[in-house]
Amino acid sequence: MHSDDGKNPKAAAQKGKRSIANDMAGKQQEISVTEFFEKNKHILGFDSRSKALLMGIKEAVDNSLDACEEAGVLPDISVSVERTDEEEEFRIVIEDNGPGIVHHMMPNVFGRLLFGSRFHAQRQSRGQQGIGISATVMYGNITTGKPAKIMSKVEEEETAWSMDITIDTKKNRPDVRNDQPFIWPEKEHGTRIEYYIRGRYVKGKQSVFEYLKNTAIVNPHAQLVYSDPEGKTYVFERATTRLPPKAKEVKPHIQGLEIGDMMRLARDSKQKTLKNFLKNDFSRISDRVANEILQLSQLNGDMRLSSLNRENVRDLVHAVSSVKIMAPPTDCLSPIGEDLIKKGLKHVLEGNRPEYYAPPVTRAPRVANGNPFVIEAGIVYGGELHSEGQVTILRFANRVPLLYQQGACAITKAVESIDWRKYGLEQRGGKGIPYGPAIIMIHIASTKVPFTSEGKEAVANLEEIGKEVALALRLCARSLKSHLNKKERKKKTRAKFDVVQQILPEIAEKSASMLGRPVPSLDSTITKIMNVVWIEPSSMMEKKGLRTVRYNIYNYTTSPKSFMLHSVLPKSCLNETIISDVLVEVTEEGKTTWKMEDLPPSACFELEFQLDGELSDVFGESDVFVSGLNPTMIMGAEPLPGDWGIKGMEISESENLPEEEEDEMEEEVLNDDD
Amino acid sequence: MHSDDGKNPKAAAQKGKRSIANDMAGKQQEISVTEFFEKNKHILGFDSRSKALLMGIKEAVDNSLDACEEAGVLPDISVSVERTDEEEEFRIVIEDNGPGIVHHMMPNVFGRLLFGSRFHAQRQSRGQQGIGISATVMYGNITTGKPAKIMSKVEEEETAWSMDITIDTKKNRPDVRNDQPFIWPEKEHGTRIEYYIRGRYVKGKQSVFEYLKNTAIVNPHAQLVYSDPEGKTYVFERATTRLPPKAKEVKPHIQGLEIGDMMRLARDSKQKTLKNFLKNDFSRISDRVANEILQLSQLNGDMRLSSLNRENVRDLVHAVSSVKIMAPPTDCLSPIGEDLIKKGLKHVLEGNRPEYYAPPVTRAPRVANGNPFVIEAGIVYGGELHSEGQVTILRFANRVPLLYQQGACAITKAVESIDWRKYGLEQRGGKGIPYGPAIIMIHIASTKVPFTSEGKEAVANLEEIGKEVALALRLCARSLKSHLNKKERKKKTRAKFDVVQQILPEIAEKSASMLGRPVPSLDSTITKIMNVVWIEPSSMMEKKGLRTVRYNIYNYTTSPKSFMLHSVLPKSCLNETIISDVLVEVTEEGKTTWKMEDLPPSACFELEFQLDGELSDVFGESDVFVSGLNPTMIMGAEPLPGDWGIKGMEISESENLPEEEEDEMEEEVLNDDD
Repeated sequence: MHSDDGKNPKAAAQKGKRSIANDMAGKQQEISVTEFFEKNKHILGFDSRSKALLMGIKEAVDNSLDACEEAGVLPDISVSVERTDEEEEFRIVIEDNGPGIVHHMMPNVFGRLLFGSRFHAQRQSRGQQGIGISATVMYGNITTGKPAKIMSKVEEEETAWSMDITIDTKKNRPDVRNDQPFIWPEKEHGTRIEYYIRGRYVKGKQSVFEYLKNTAIVNPHAQLVYSDPEGKTYVFERATTRLPPKAKEVKPHIQGLEIGDMMRLARDSKQKTLKNFLKNDFSRISDRVANEILQLSQLNGDMRLSSLNRENVRDLVHAVSSVKIMAPPTDCLSPIGEDLIKKGLKHVLEGNRPEYYAPPVTRAPRVANGNPFVIEAGIVYGGELHSEGQVTILRFANRVPLLYQQGACAITKAVESIDWRKYGLEQRGGKGIPYGPAIIMIHIASTKVPFTSEGKEAVANLEEIGKEVALALRLCARSLKSHLNKKERKKKTRAKFDVVQQILPEIAEKSASMLGRPVPSLDSTITKIMNVVWIEPSSMMEKKGLRTVRYNIYNYTTSPKSFMLHSVLPKSCLNETIISDVLVEVTEEGKTTWKMEDLPPSACFELEFQLDGELSDVFGESDVFVSGLNPTMIMGAEPLPGDWGIKGMEISESENLPEEEEDEMEEEVLNDDD
Repeated sequence: MHSDDGKNPKAAAQKGKRSIANDMAGKQQEISVTEFFEKNKHILGFDSRSKALLMGIKEAVDNSLDACEEAGVLPDISVSVERTDEEEEFRIVIEDNGPGIVHHMMPNVFGRLLFGSRFHAQRQSRGQQGIGISATVMYGNITTGKPAKIMSKVEEEETAWSMDITIDTKKNRPDVRNDQPFIWPEKEHGTRIEYYIRGRYVKGKQSVFEYLKNTAIVNPHAQLVYSDPEGKTYVFERATTRLPPKAKEVKPHIQGLEIGDMMRLARDSKQKTLKNFLKNDFSRISDRVANEILQLSQLNGDMRLSSLNRENVRDLVHAVSSVKIMAPPTDCLSPIGEDLIKKGLKHVLEGNRPEYYAPPVTRAPRVANGNPFVIEAGIVYGGELHSEGQVTILRFANRVPLLYQQGACAITKAVESIDWRKYGLEQRGGKGIPYGPAIIMIHIASTKVPFTSEGKEAVANLEEIGKEVALALRLCARSLKSHLNKKERKKKTRAKFDVVQQILPEIAEKSASMLGRPVPSLDSTITKIMNVVWIEPSSMMEKKGLRTVRYNIYNYTTSPKSFMLHSVLPKSCLNETIISDVLVEVTEEGKTTWKMEDLPPSACFELEFQLDGELSDVFGESDVFVSGLNPTMIMGAEPLPGDWGIKGMEISESENLPEEEEDEMEEEVLNDDD
């Protein structure tokens, strides 16, 4: 208990207070950002030994990938993790073939927090803050007392440079030793960082191996080599020599800016007049849009930007919110794309064949806090997936796998906000992570991913982002549901068939034998009862990567039928084995059309082809469509949707869900948190 | 697609690369910490309009409470939230009676990030980083373009000072206007902040009201007045005029320090020799302990501190980990305490009466990263609590309620890591937040709570903390389980009783009538069959705060019995109504003993008393114990545990769970994340 007990605490307090305000003033002082992070290592992601080991590698590899892409170089990155003689200590080396770092910048890049080149750029990159790699150097310093050794060579110099770096945390400045040039044989350009760290080496889903594997999947242009502490070496081969389209730098988008943001931009602008400011400093503002904004805000476009006051800016911000402005350009973003999403999903299956891949969804770009972003989603379901436990959620941000802090992430919250029972997954009370045999993959690509902390492990729950993730997921989920419905219908039809095909002949046989008559042919009777064209897909894995797909097409109607069959084959699987007499067309996107000409009543046609290549087993054979036939007559396939357009017959990636559903989503997603 | 398509990308890349490294060097620049947070508002907790409104108030109130406590003043804090004429804009005013801030420090405290007095102090306080209140001022600036107005008066000055502050984000410096003295009538000392913010006003569990209510509960010495935007005023009255014991500043604890940490401390130390460094710069290091560390690390205590090298420090850190050092002193911490935990739990029940309060657990202090911390936990169960859905988790850190980011919090992760099925709650697969009618409350008090981000909404998942939370929860859970077991046993005994008491007389009656004999008295027969002393607790709420508790004590044995009955009554409910003839003793902690003297066979004694006061309904009448009787003869109560010591008959807050259980916990908790 307090020593003032029993006395009047107020009086006691008064006595001591005369000096308190001054006392306190004496203690007030500036805190260096490095000291701050030194005391808050966990904010940088270094909150456990095992995580610390991974974080450092992640920061270095992310930087290498960014640098290579910026320089237009196909990344060759090697990562080595070795135990040292000291307890829990590891020696980590990451080397790349990036453009290198010029000599005088090396200390700042690796030895100073909040120092970087990408912070002010509106362009998608992995690194954003100028914190990660210096934090790694700092954490290595703190836990082992040893400096990091940096080596780098730029192409135009003959020699490379090497130096040992520690961080002076009081000043947030690098402390450099052994700065010297050297000849780096066979290295044209590139950077190498070597540091020591106290860590714990783990396997499993939060391991270095897993991070690198997932990184390789969504960065197929990179070659990654990993030497683990047990001396094993893994090579994640480059799957393509095409660099992803280089993300362009764009101007900020005006929507979502706060009054203060716009006041600052206006103050820093080089434009003279308000109208030029609007037209030249923001993306997607045409002359017409600028005029509309000016009219709505009742401001004169010729007014000098320097005379803009708070009320003017408030009116501008207000006007902007009611003007329709084009979505931001997408060339500042680099989505993963449909095929790689499927491949990513396939990878985590580890050889188990699922029942269904929902067609991946890529949403149109949106803006959050002035930063464009795109959400991509994919779902894989059933088959050999584990059906016990919660679904697996795979999160990616700017092509970086997120392995930690799932519970804190807007992506997870969006998953939890959806009533998955509507879409065929189990979920208690319609909230929370659903249960069942499914894997959900989400990627956010943005010029600025709003992470919840400097460790970049979870996406903050901004309203616009939560909403977009939920919309993307629902589109996938609807495909899943439609698949499950189809499956259910098929099961029922199959039951009807079984009844008709087994019982009818039995009845006929019995009746015939009772009447002493010959058994009649039932084909036409069955045909009359069914009156459908029945398409029965099946597939078989011949060997790894080679799959035979067959459609048995029965005409159970009374007249010959002509119609088209459609499907979308994986692009990478298109080869001569899909050629058949009835093939009409294969487009570049894999959209394939076959023609049935006068299939006679009671006849069956077997359409068979083979798919070759790694993506062969992501093809969903039951996604088959029919045109040229009355939809009520089709069984086992869907009628071709009206928009066999760009996006094929996936559920068209429409902005327009039925209105109630949009509303409902909004409601669910708007709940800020938890 | 990239424009290099088709060409050799390598060659194309080479061409552009000559300038790339230099280009990139040109873009490298320092990022001001303010710019960083301006672009990452969500890291500060300002990630949605509704949350932003709350965050600002929280930062200001936390600061006021800290300042008052530091000055030994009973806090009087008023909070006002008003809508302005502008869309989504609010005017917020927070005023306190703290010691005030001296004039020249006002700009820095409110207008500069990473500036504060508590960052380097080893002492429990709400504010730690010197970020919160300046971030609030900055966010208000950004969203409304308006400055914050600060007024403050320190007692020794005649006049108060008032100034308008905005933050220059490029420089992280305050921009001050209208700095002027004024007379503040009737204000001896205190601070007032008025700012404008774009926000959204919400009700419910993440509202300003909820935050203030919860704050009042765990800070009963504070008086809080809240005017909401609808013009309603709520007063949360001070419940005690005792200030909580002032948390003392302590030296760092040596355990858990990294090599780099200790190198820095040694470098900054004023001590000359190694031994003095150990003894004087750390807490809990006696001469004996210092010698032990020195011996183990094979270092000479007289060695000059300045000559300590990395290897020496490594050996020191190594030695420290195997020496037993006293836990850190607790006077730097200010736990909530048992009564307030119960009260907190009671409050969220909103009048619903639960079936059971598990005795709150306060763990012994531990160290994480050199910072002492204490975990407290409480569970309330059943009765009128909602039984649908997940249990409610209430999180507090240094007496501040945590309303956001539940999913990211180490506390939640610890809850999820426990297999609650063992303790009587429903939980799918033994993982995740359990379901059922329960509320779980956890408080972490620490000289440095490791929050996951600068917004201070969730505790980072440090191993030591996760483990302690899980241990505290298990201790509560075991009480719960033992209550549920007792309930189950009681149900069974009751069933046996019912059988004996109903069927036996019926049989007797039937037999008697069949034989034409009179019905025999069955008392002694029942007594023989049962052979127990049966204690049947019951209770009734007479009116708000007044509760009658009754124990019916039956002697179903064949001889008179003498024994003691024991229970722990809530301290605040002790009054004359509990006096009765059989009362033997009430200790200060509420431990109460009654004596039954020669209760005859087949007799029943009614022990009745009343509990008065707010905590009367947190008393669990079924927690009743018996001594002086063969345990096998007691029904409806438990035999008195051996350690009717300080902690009463709660499950003694022992360090020593059975060993397997400790191990198992460890295993579960060690999984870093998710």
